[in-house]
Formats: sequence, C-alpha cells, structure tokens
Amino acid sequence: MMNIKDNERLSTLNHSCAHLLAQAVKHLYPHAMYWVGPVIEEGFYYDIDLGDDVIKEEDLEKIEREMKKIAKDGKRIVRHELTKEEALKMFENDPYKIDLIRRMDENDTVISCYTQGDFTDLCRGPHVETVKELKYFKLLKVSGAYWKGDSKNKMLQRIYGVCFENEEDLKAYLEELEERKNRDHRKIGKDMKIFMTHDLVGQGLPMWLPNGAFIFQTLENYIREKEYKLGYQHVYTPCMATSDLYKISGHWDHYKEDMFPLMEREGEEFVLRPMNCPHHMLIYKNELHSYKDLPIRIGELAHDFRFEASGAVCGLERVRTFCQNDAHLFVTPEQIESEFEKVVHLILDVYKDFNIVPASFRLSLRDKEDKEKYFDDDAMWEKAENTLRKVLTDLKIDFVEAKGEAAFYGPKLDVQIKTAIGHELTLSTCQLDFLLPERFDLTYIDRDGTKKRPVVLHRAILGSIDRFIAYLLEVTKGAFPLWLSPVQVNIIPVNEIMHLDYAKEVQSILADHGIRTELDAREEKLGYRMRESQTKKIPYTLVLGDKERDGHLISYRKFGSQETCTVTIEELICMIQEEVNQKH
Amino acid sequence: MMNIKDNERLSTLNHSCAHLLAQAVKHLYPHAMYWVGPVIEEGFYYDIDLGDDVIKEEDLEKIEREMKKIAKDGKRIVRHELTKEEALKMFENDPYKIDLIRRMDENDTVISCYTQGDFTDLCRGPHVETVKELKYFKLLKVSGAYWKGDSKNKMLQRIYGVCFENEEDLKAYLEELEERKNRDHRKIGKDMKIFMTHDLVGQGLPMWLPNGAFIFQTLENYIREKEYKLGYQHVYTPCMATSDLYKISGHWDHYKEDMFPLMEREGEEFVLRPMNCPHHMLIYKNELHSYKDLPIRIGELAHDFRFEASGAVCGLERVRTFCQNDAHLFVTPEQIESEFEKVVHLILDVYKDFNIVPASFRLSLRDKEDKEKYFDDDAMWEKAENTLRKVLTDLKIDFVEAKGEAAFYGPKLDVQIKTAIGHELTLSTCQLDFLLPERFDLTYIDRDGTKKRPVVLHRAILGSIDRFIAYLLEVTKGAFPLWLSPVQVNIIPVNEIMHLDYAKEVQSILADHGIRTELDAREEKLGYRMRESQTKKIPYTLVLGDKERDGHLISYRKFGSQETCTVTIEELICMIQEEVNQKH
Repeated sequence: MMNIKDNERLSTLNHSCAHLLAQAVKHLYPHAMYWVGPVIEEGFYYDIDLGDDVIKEEDLEKIEREMKKIAKDGKRIVRHELTKEEALKMFENDPYKIDLIRRMDENDTVISCYTQGDFTDLCRGPHVETVKELKYFKLLKVSGAYWKGDSKNKMLQRIYGVCFENEEDLKAYLEELEERKNRDHRKIGKDMKIFMTHDLVGQGLPMWLPNGAFIFQTLENYIREKEYKLGYQHVYTPCMATSDLYKISGHWDHYKEDMFPLMEREGEEFVLRPMNCPHHMLIYKNELHSYKDLPIRIGELAHDFRFEASGAVCGLERVRTFCQNDAHLFVTPEQIESEFEKVVHLILDVYKDFNIVPASFRLSLRDKEDKEKYFDDDAMWEKAENTLRKVLTDLKIDFVEAKGEAAFYGPKLDVQIKTAIGHELTLSTCQLDFLLPERFDLTYIDRDGTKKRPVVLHRAILGSIDRFIAYLLEVTKGAFPLWLSPVQVNIIPVNEIMHLDYAKEVQSILADHGIRTELDAREEKLGYRMRESQTKKIPYTLVLGDKERDGHLISYRKFGSQETCTVTIEELICMIQEEVNQKH
Repeated sequence: MMNIKDNERLSTLNHSCAHLLAQAVKHLYPHAMYWVGPVIEEGFYYDIDLGDDVIKEEDLEKIEREMKKIAKDGKRIVRHELTKEEALKMFENDPYKIDLIRRMDENDTVISCYTQGDFTDLCRGPHVETVKELKYFKLLKVSGAYWKGDSKNKMLQRIYGVCFENEEDLKAYLEELEERKNRDHRKIGKDMKIFMTHDLVGQGLPMWLPNGAFIFQTLENYIREKEYKLGYQHVYTPCMATSDLYKISGHWDHYKEDMFPLMEREGEEFVLRPMNCPHHMLIYKNELHSYKDLPIRIGELAHDFRFEASGAVCGLERVRTFCQNDAHLFVTPEQIESEFEKVVHLILDVYKDFNIVPASFRLSLRDKEDKEKYFDDDAMWEKAENTLRKVLTDLKIDFVEAKGEAAFYGPKLDVQIKTAIGHELTLSTCQLDFLLPERFDLTYIDRDGTKKRPVVLHRAILGSIDRFIAYLLEVTKGAFPLWLSPVQVNIIPVNEIMHLDYAKEVQSILADHGIRTELDAREEKLGYRMRESQTKKIPYTLVLGDKERDGHLISYRKFGSQETCTVTIEELICMIQEEVNQKH
C-alpha cells in the first residue's frame, strides 16, 4: 500500500485537505475547535473538539459535500508568518492552539499560519496554492481520540481522509482499502467462524471455534510430525512457574513489565510464563548428559502469556496468550553449524508447503565496540557469527546483516515475511544463547571426561500458531488449502429425498478414506445451497442427481471454479488424497 | 488391599500393637510423650513427642527388637476404669493426655486406661488379653505430623506399623505393600521418564517428558477422534477469563477458595479458570440456534486450574493444572434421553479399549424433601431423574442410586473405577445442568417459533488426562499397550558393524509404516542391550544377526516373553498393525 507521508507532493496535498476538512467542519459546526491535523501513511486526519456534538459515519458525506463546495469556490491558500506574541494574540480564544504555540521556540521555529477564505489555521505548511487543487479526496472514517493520547484527557473526534491528484489514483486506493478490509483476519475469522472474542473472557484472549480449533490442531500436528522426523522430542510443560524460576532465568529483571501479575497464596508465588525456555532448561538438567547424547532437541507447542496493553491487542495477531512452535536445541559448540543449517532447511521446507516467499533473512550480530551490551566472550561470538554467516552463504541465501541488533546472549537469524495486507513480520527465528546454559549451570560430559557447557539454540518455525493462522486467513481470504480445511467436501443431493441415499453412501465412503465431509440435504433450492457452499469456501462441492446416482458417479465443482466435472468416486478420492499430500 | 480397621479382630490386634510400640519407645526414649495411636485402614500409627530426638527409618529395627522382647515377656493387658478427676491426676505430667481427658464427658464416656507391665496408656480399648499375642508385626515407616494436624503446632513423630495373627498374613500384606510401592505411578513415572517435577516450577505442576507427552497427545487424539465421529465439535479456549465471567457462572461465590488468586492490572481482573463450562456457554451464545441445530456438542481438551493445598498434591493424581476431556452438550429437554444414552455408550466403548471394568455406576439424585439444596423445578427433576434411570435400566447396567447426592443444578451419573492399588476414583461423569443455561440466558428457537431454554449435559469420559495416565501407569506398571507406547520396536543388530545396515533398512521400512522405532547399535553386549529393552518395557525387541540379514527375516521377542520368533518383515508389520488397531 502506498505510503502517502513519504511522497512529497501527496503529503502536501493531504495536509491541505486536512485544512479543507477543518474549514468545512467549521461551517457546519461553528463552535468546533481544532487540535492537530497531520499527514499519516494512509492519508490525513484532524482531531476536533465539537463540545457535545458527535460526528457519525453518516455525517461524513455532508462534510464532504461542504468540502467540495469550498474547493470549487477556489480560494487561494495564503501563508503569514508571525511572532509568538502575535500568534498567542491571534488564537487567544483557542486553548488547543495556545497549547501548541506555548511550546514553540521562536528562535528555532518560524511560526506561521495559513488562510483560505474564512478559515485560518496555525500551521508550518507547506500547502498547495489553492483549494481548487483538492478535488479527489474521500473521508474514510471517524473515531474517538483522547487529547494528546492520554485517557485522562477529553475525548476528541478524529476524522480520517485521503486525497489524490486524480480520480484513478483515488479509486485504486479506495479499492485497495476495501480489499484490506476484506482481508482483515478479524473479519474473515468472524465470517468463517474461526474464532470469537468476548468481553467476559477478556481482551487479547480469543476463543477458537470448531473450524479454528481444527486448523490449529492440524497445524500443531503438521509441525510436530516434521520435527519428530528430524529427531526432536516433544514435551509438554505447565504454563506457569514460581517467580524464582524467572529470577534465575533473568526474565524477572528484564521482562517483568510484560508479564501477568504474580499470584501469591499460602507463601507460594506463581506467575504465568512469558516464555518456556526456563522449563526446558530444567528438563535438560533433569539428567546427566554425555557428548554422545547431544544434540538434544526439545520441542513444545507451548502456551505462553504476555500482558499486552489493552490498546495494543488485535485479533489473533497481538494476543495475551498464544501457542509457540518453540524448541530448544542443546548442542556442543562444534554442532552449532550443522544444527543451525538443519533449522534453516526446516524453515525453507515449511515455507514451501505454505507457498511462503520470505521478504528477507536478517542476521543480527553484535556491535563489537559495545562491550556492555553483549555477553562477554569474544571468541565465542566471533566463531558463532562466522558460523551462521557461513551456513547462510553456503545455502546461497540472500541475507542482510544487522550489526548491533543481536540480543545480549547471542546472534540470531530472523526470517521476515510480508502479510497479504503488506505488514512485515518476523515469522521464524533461530537464536543462539550462551547465557541461559550459564544461568542454569547446564553441562555435559565431553569425550575427555570433563564437564562442558552446551550452547542453546532457541528456534521457532511457524512462530505463534495464533498469529500464523491470522497470516493464513489474510493470504487465503479463508479459502484454506484442502489439507487444512475443516470441511473438505460438501455433498449436495439435487433432491433431498430421491438422491439422499446415494449422497449418504458417498459420504460414508469418503469418511472411510479420512475425508472430512458435510451433507447439505436441506429443503433449499440447489442454486442456493451451491452458492452457500462457495460462501463457506468449501474446497469441493459435490452435486448428486439422477445421472450420478445411476452411474455411480460424482459431479463436483472446486471452490472458485465455474466448471463442473464428473468422475468416479475412486477418481475423486485419488485426486483429493494427492492434493492433500502435496499440501496444495 | 485388606482394610484392617474394618476387621474387628485385626483392629484390636493393631490397637494393642500401637501400645506395644509406645511401650518400646518409652524404654528407648524415656522422655517420650504420646498423643494418639489409632488403628487405620493400613494398620496403626502412634504420634509421639520425642523432644529434640528424631527417629529415623533405620531406628525402626531397634524399636521392633524392643517390641519383640516385651511381647516375649508376655505381660497381661489390664483395663482400669477411672473418674475424670482420677484420670487428670494420673496423667498430670502429660499435657497431651490432659488435653484429651479435658475434652471427655464423664456422663457420655467411661474413661479407662490399659496397663501392660511398666506401661499405662489412656485408652478406651478393647485390647487383646496379653502382649504375647502380638507376634507378627512390622513397623513400616516414620514421618512428621503436626499436633492435631495444624501446621502452627509442634511437629510430632508418627510411626506406622501393622500387626497380623500369623506370619503368612503378615508376609502377604508386606508383599502387597511392596507391590503397591512398585506400582506407584510416581515411581514408574520417574523410571520410565514419563514426567518430572521441580521446586522452581512449583508443587502440583508436573512437566511431561517426551515419553509422557507422547502418551498424553496420543490419548488426546484418541478421544477427540472418537468424539468427532459422534458429531462433537472441538473448540480451544484460553485458560483464563475475567472474574466477571465466574461471577455470572456462580463459581466466584461457590468455588473461589479452590481457584488461583486474581491477577489485577490496569483495571482488568483475570483469573485462571477452575472449569471451562462458562467459556463453552459463551460459545453457544455466540450464535442464534434453532431446535434443528440441537443437540450441539462442544468438546475441549481443556486446561483448568485448581489451587490444591500443597499438602494434598500428589504426582499426577492431584495436581494444580490438568487437562479435562470435557464436553458440553446443549440439548432440548426431549433429547436428554438419547444424548445421555450416547454418552453411556461412549463410556462403555472407551472402557473396552482400555480393558476397564467399572467398579460401580452411581446415579446421584436429589433429596425431594430438601427444597433448599436443589434447583427449584420439580417437574424437570422428576423427568430428568426418570430418564437417566430408564436409560441405565434399558442398557442393563447395574447401578446404585445415591439420594441427596446430586448437585444443586441437576442429577448425574458417576462411573467409579478401582486403581491397581485399590483406590476408588470417579473416572467418567455425566451431569445434567438446568442452571447454567439460566445464568447465561441461553436459548433456542423451537418449532413453534418461541424461545426455549436448552439443557446442558456436562460430561467427561477419560476425566483428566493427567490422572488417567497415572491410572494407566499403575495398571500397566509402565508396560503400555502397543498403540500407546512411545517406542514400539527396539531394533538390536547383533553386531553393531556387520548387521547395522540391515538394522537401518528394517528401521526405515517400519518407519514408513508409521511404526515408532529405536535402534540400539551401541557397543554393548547383546544380552545387556536385550535386558535394557525389557527394563524400558518396549513392546517388541528385534534381534538381527546373520540369519535374519541373509534371509531378510526378523527375530523378535515381545515384552515379558522369553520366546523368540522369526518372521518376515511383512508379517511383523501386519502383526503390529493389527495389534495397534485392536488396541491390545
């Protein structure tokens, strides 16, 4: 999506359009007072104090009409510069502007205002020459916004809009906006009955409905199977621990603000875990290990908890509890290379199954000069960084190096992807850790009989399953690939009496082959039922009438296609099984 | 296991033996003072105050020797009755006995004491004639116990023992005790690497190691598949909610003491859920329902949390977080019968797979007279109780009725089973609920277009997966049936070089058929590796040497058998698959 703030011409246009909006609002609501009206990535907004008046979505059209009228009138936009004293005088009845002016330093800033016809606003500019240039705009929405973003302050009304140079650009932009809205995983998640939220459960705590729970569980099984085959062991640990565990791990000192509050009772102190590394450290430490046992790969689909601010939670993307596809690899220093390479291979392998093309591979390294910020073992760092770099280079992976971006405890690889609506996010990560093994005093007995310290690789492939499903919802618009679809085949008998037996027979045969079906024998018109099957985005819709029953055949239509094909049951099963196996 | 308290003769014998113990301790620790020495199911104990002295396990033999000596001496046990005043005088230097005497009511109780040689104890008897009769006893263990069970009081020392009439009975009993110890799921769970605990994680919060996590997950998949086939939908909901949710459900008023403490932050109040019913009520309420949609069966492998007292937690049996095989069926009143019947069928079906023979079916009903204790809808109760009774009778199930044992909100069926060490526990339950649908104002649109209230059936089949695994560990001693075994086949090449390629080939073929294998090609003697395979209770151990390699054959030994059989790979796979399918 275009970033309007980054485009100089569009930025000016949108800024002027914000003034036009303010002028129109002033005409309609003469008592309106204005806070700020900046340009943002998506266009512009203006925060307005309307006293007791409330602007609703349906009022936007009226305001737009007034804006068009003013624009047609074609007044020039004129700049005046003034002293701080003049400015304070000019806006003496406007507490918002006075607040702004008071904070300006005359020596640093030229104070200016812009006038167009009957409207003057404090503004540093620049603006377009005349309001005539503001032709192709649209007001997008209105919402509440606390003055200065502080919930203790008064709630202002924020009107959003966008302005372009020509109709085509505006139209394309609005279509893209609409597309974004349609791809929003919250909307699709609701339409497709994937998840729901409820105030009584709480913010950031979505509940997975049957369709969503099925996909969740299928993804869990998918990644666990992959990991089992690669020699991972899976554990399952409680989602809390005593606060002492996090004092040892260091989370208590560095991460407490992001954690849920302590639960204290009868002298015991528990806390929901923000990460599951400490549990896995204890599992490693539960037995003596020889160098022969390493690498030990402990995986878990682990439930973790973070207290995101209530304003920050969003659908499945930012939640307060989530399920991490996490693992900790306990390796000898010599094994870092081969294990890291295997992790990268696993990432690429999984991405292939989901058709994910990574946006970038980012290798975060230490800043050698900054001795404070990084775990102090130069030789270890040097070797580890070179190893990671070598693996990526050998695999011919195009990666960027981010100096100074490593964590305190080791270098890491992040794999960035772009969501369907253009957000970039870190999906997979592989992080070296020299520190946790120290803190938990982990050891193994080396070939020479001495105790050595293992290195830990933290890694996540699908990231959080919750956020991964949000990603999938947006990229597929809810039309999941066959292997992930909760219902794979919708069986529709043309006549709910005459073809019902055959439909049931087909359903039973498909079920015997592990194919997930639904039978729609409602007394509704065929066309209605077929349309609904499309709305529900079911991959295969079977229509069974006389011809199919008598010939023991199947007529099917794939989701999104207008074409109906007729095959035998065996052919259909074969086709479906192949599609599932290939994860198409 | 025999209940000694229930057997009059043994009860007297054990009571006298407690006195004998006290007398012996008095000889060895003259300053000892005595609290109470009752007979219990397993024998007897005596709580003793030894001042600063501590009795250790190794001291028990010494005490036993002294007991034998006194018994041989053969003093008669003589009863005296006395007034409260005389008793207070007699024990004036013994604060423990004084405490007991003070609480006695002369009009109700005859106060008596028993003397044997140099030892007199306050006691209501009865006792055996002479200490000579106390020949076949054993002291079992010693532990600390707070005076009157209150942790604010002094810690006394509790010595446990048991006494029988003859050597055979004692021997049989001790063997059974040993067997119990060996069947203790905590011991087997540790030996078989099923789970671990750690103080840093906290009491009652076991961590599942790879073997345990595998079994856990296999059981989850097992029951979920069964339920899917029966038309259940599975959801997945967060393990916490706002406290408001539990105020509506009523848990806040009635169950708060068993819940974890509240987590408050930024004006929000969260609490870990003790049960997941309220979440499921919200899911039902999320959509409008017609009578045509019912029954709706919402299942979840749900993580719930209860704050068990730290003294009460035990291995996997009593934990603070557990996974319930829970479901809520939303039904019309007319559907109660058929749905309840289906639940009973599911219970019986699952029990067949695990060879579980229920100890009893208990139908808990209301007490009609007690109008306070039960949800007020006589007609509803009458009908529901008759329905449950009818289903059980029709199914020819032998059940007991427990009048007055129903919950406030409806009648229920509990299925009791006996664990391998003789504990009785409720495994499955099906509970009618008229109340929650009221509290959450659940409705459906009936045939006539009016809004009606559904009934909820709460049901659990495997109960908590955690406790079910504890049960399985005790009943199988860790030798899990093939389908549940984390490793099904251990492959041992006779010579770790000459037969390794063939062993790997076999492993790969088995893996292709979904069979879980381990390859033990360590440089250890064959006998050693085979013994270890038995210790690890792996169902199949393959031994591959020249004969097997050259003839493309498999020699295997099943766990617990001494017999080696030789078959083709195909035959082995067939046999294993059949065993898995039949859940043997």
